[in-house]
Amino acid sequence: MQSRIVGVDLGGTRMRAALLDGQGHLLKRVEAPTLAHEGPDAVIARLLDLIASVVPGEGEPPARAIGFSAPGPVDPILGTVVAPPNLPGWCNVPLRRIVQERFHLPTFLGNDANVAALAEVYQGAAQGHKNAIYLTISTGIGGGIVIDGRLFEGATGIGAEVGHMILVVEGNRASSLEKEAAGPAMARRAVARIQAGEPSRITEMVGGDLNAVSGKTVGEAALAGDALALDVVRHTGRLIGYGITSLMHLFNPTIFVIGGGVSTLGDLLFDPMREAIRQYALAPAYWEHTPIVLAALGDDVAIIGAATLALRRLEEAASGSD
Amino acid sequence: MQSRIVGVDLGGTRMRAALLDGQGHLLKRVEAPTLAHEGPDAVIARLLDLIASVVPGEGEPPARAIGFSAPGPVDPILGTVVAPPNLPGWCNVPLRRIVQERFHLPTFLGNDANVAALAEVYQGAAQGHKNAIYLTISTGIGGGIVIDGRLFEGATGIGAEVGHMILVVEGNRASSLEKEAAGPAMARRAVARIQAGEPSRITEMVGGDLNAVSGKTVGEAALAGDALALDVVRHTGRLIGYGITSLMHLFNPTIFVIGGGVSTLGDLLFDPMREAIRQYALAPAYWEHTPIVLAALGDDVAIIGAATLALRRLEEAASGSD
Repeated sequence: MQSRIVGVDLGGTRMRAALLDGQGHLLKRVEAPTLAHEGPDAVIARLLDLIASVVPGEGEPPARAIGFSAPGPVDPILGTVVAPPNLPGWCNVPLRRIVQERFHLPTFLGNDANVAALAEVYQGAAQGHKNAIYLTISTGIGGGIVIDGRLFEGATGIGAEVGHMILVVEGNRASSLEKEAAGPAMARRAVARIQAGEPSRITEMVGGDLNAVSGKTVGEAALAGDALALDVVRHTGRLIGYGITSLMHLFNPTIFVIGGGVSTLGDLLFDPMREAIRQYALAPAYWEHTPIVLAALGDDVAIIGAATLALRRLEEAASGSD
Repeated sequence: MQSRIVGVDLGGTRMRAALLDGQGHLLKRVEAPTLAHEGPDAVIARLLDLIASVVPGEGEPPARAIGFSAPGPVDPILGTVVAPPNLPGWCNVPLRRIVQERFHLPTFLGNDANVAALAEVYQGAAQGHKNAIYLTISTGIGGGIVIDGRLFEGATGIGAEVGHMILVVEGNRASSLEKEAAGPAMARRAVARIQAGEPSRITEMVGGDLNAVSGKTVGEAALAGDALALDVVRHTGRLIGYGITSLMHLFNPTIFVIGGGVSTLGDLLFDPMREAIRQYALAPAYWEHTPIVLAALGDDVAIIGAATLALRRLEEAASGSD
C-alpha cells in the first residue's frame, strides 16, 4: 500500500503544510499566515488545524510520519523550537510532542537551513551527491551539511552553523562569516563608504535616507553597474569564498549549493568567490571536481526538506543505524 | 584464537612498527631512523624490514591487518602517500599496495593527525566519546575528527584539515589558523615586536640572533614570565579559541583534545583560549558540557592510532557499513 508523508514549514510570516508521496513529491499543499505576534498558543492551534487539513482521511493511503522545518535554533533531539528571533515568545516549545500527541504519528524536527540541504540533495541541485553543503545567504547565513547521505547536525544537534565560523580577527575582536558577508554587512559597508564621501547611485535609490539601505539595495545597484556597489559585492564574494575554503578543508564535500537572496547576484558574487577559493585552497583537489551551484528548489524547499528528513529518519531507523 | 594488529608510524625522522593485541594494546615495538634523504626506495626497504620484524611468525596468534600512520597529505582511499614536506622525493607512493603485496594483509593508511584523533578516542583523553576533535599544535596545526566513533576524512579523504580554516582576513589577504597560531607565527610576532624596540628576555635567550627564535623559545620565555612572550602566547590562545569556536559551531563535538608542543604551555594558552570561546560561541550549549583537555597519549599515539584505524575499518567492513 502506498504511503504518504506530511511536510510542514513553520516560518516567521507564514506556515505551510503539505502531503507528499513516499518519494517526497508534493501532492497537496495549504498555507496560512503565522501571525507570530499572537503568541505560541494561537500559532500552534492554527498550525495543528493546517496539518489536520492535509493528513489523509480513512480509506486514503496513510501518512507514515510528519516532518517539520522550523526557524533555528531548533533542538532536533528533544524536538523543541528553542527561541527563534522571528517567533517572539517561543522558548523551548515542545513542538514534536504536541504534534505527536495530536496526530499519533512519528514526528521529526529540523531547522530550516538544515532540512533545505537535505531537499537539495534528494530533489534539487545536489541530486546524486552523498556529501554536500548548502549555504543560504540573505539577511543571515545559514546552511546544512549532508554526510554520507545523512543530515549532519552534530553530537547534540546544534552543529552545521556555517554562518558562525569565525572569519575576521582584528586585535582582540573577532567576527563571523554571517556578520561580515550577509545582506546587512553589505549595506553597512556601502553606507560607510558613502558617508565617507564616495559617490554611488545608492544614495539616489533610497532618496538620500541611508538608513533605508539594505543588502538588496546594494545588490540592485551592483546589477545596475554602480562601482561602489560592485566593489562591495566583490568583497562579499571573496569573504564567502574564504568560508567555503574552510568548509572544503574541513568537510571535503563533492558539491556546494548556494541559495538565498544574495545568491541571485550570480557571477558578480560567484567570480570573486571562486577566485578566493582557488587562491587559498590547499590544493586543486579541494575544488576542481567540486561544483558550486545555485539552489534549484524555490519556495517549497523547506516543505520538501521536512518531508525528506522524516523519510530518511524512518529509513535509518528501519536499517538499524542510529 | 587471539588476533594481532600491526601498527606502523612512518615519520620524517624515525619509523616505528609495533604489534598490538585485538584491543589495540602494545605488545612489542621496534624503531629505526627514517633517513629520508636516502629517498623513497631505501626508506621503503627499511620500513618493510621493520614491519617484518614484528609480524607474528607461524604458531603465534596471526596479524589481521596493518595500520599505517604517515605524514599528510595522505590519500586514505587510494592508500598513497601524496607528497609530505618532510619526506622529500615522495610523490603518490602507493604504500598500501607495496605493503599488502609483501605481507598479504589488509592494510589501512591514515595521516598522522587523523589517526591520533582515533587513538585519543579509543585509548586516550577522549575515551567514551563518540564525537571528538583532536588538535595538535606545534610547527603546524593538524587535527582529526571523530564522528559517531568513526574517523571522518571527507568525501575523497582530504577533509579534517583543521589548521587550514581561514581565520584572518585583512583587505584582500586571508590567512589560516595554522599560519597565525602555530609555533612559527609565535616566533614571527615576538621577533617583530623586539625589532620594533620592545624589551624581552628572548633577545638574550638566543644570544641576540633573532633568526634563532622559535615557538619553543617564545613558550620558554612566557613560562619564565617575560611580558612580551606572555602577550604573544595570550594572542595565540585567543586565535586557537576562535578556531575551536568555529569547530564547535560546525561539528558540535562532545570533547576537544589538544596535543603538540604548544599545548604544553598549559593555562597560559588555555585561559585566553577559553575566554575567546565563551565570548564568541553562539550559546553556552556549545561549550559548557564540552571539555577541552590535553592529549593523554605520548610518543605512541601514532602507532596506537594506526592500529585502531585498522581495527575499526575491519569492524566497519564486518558490520556492513561503508
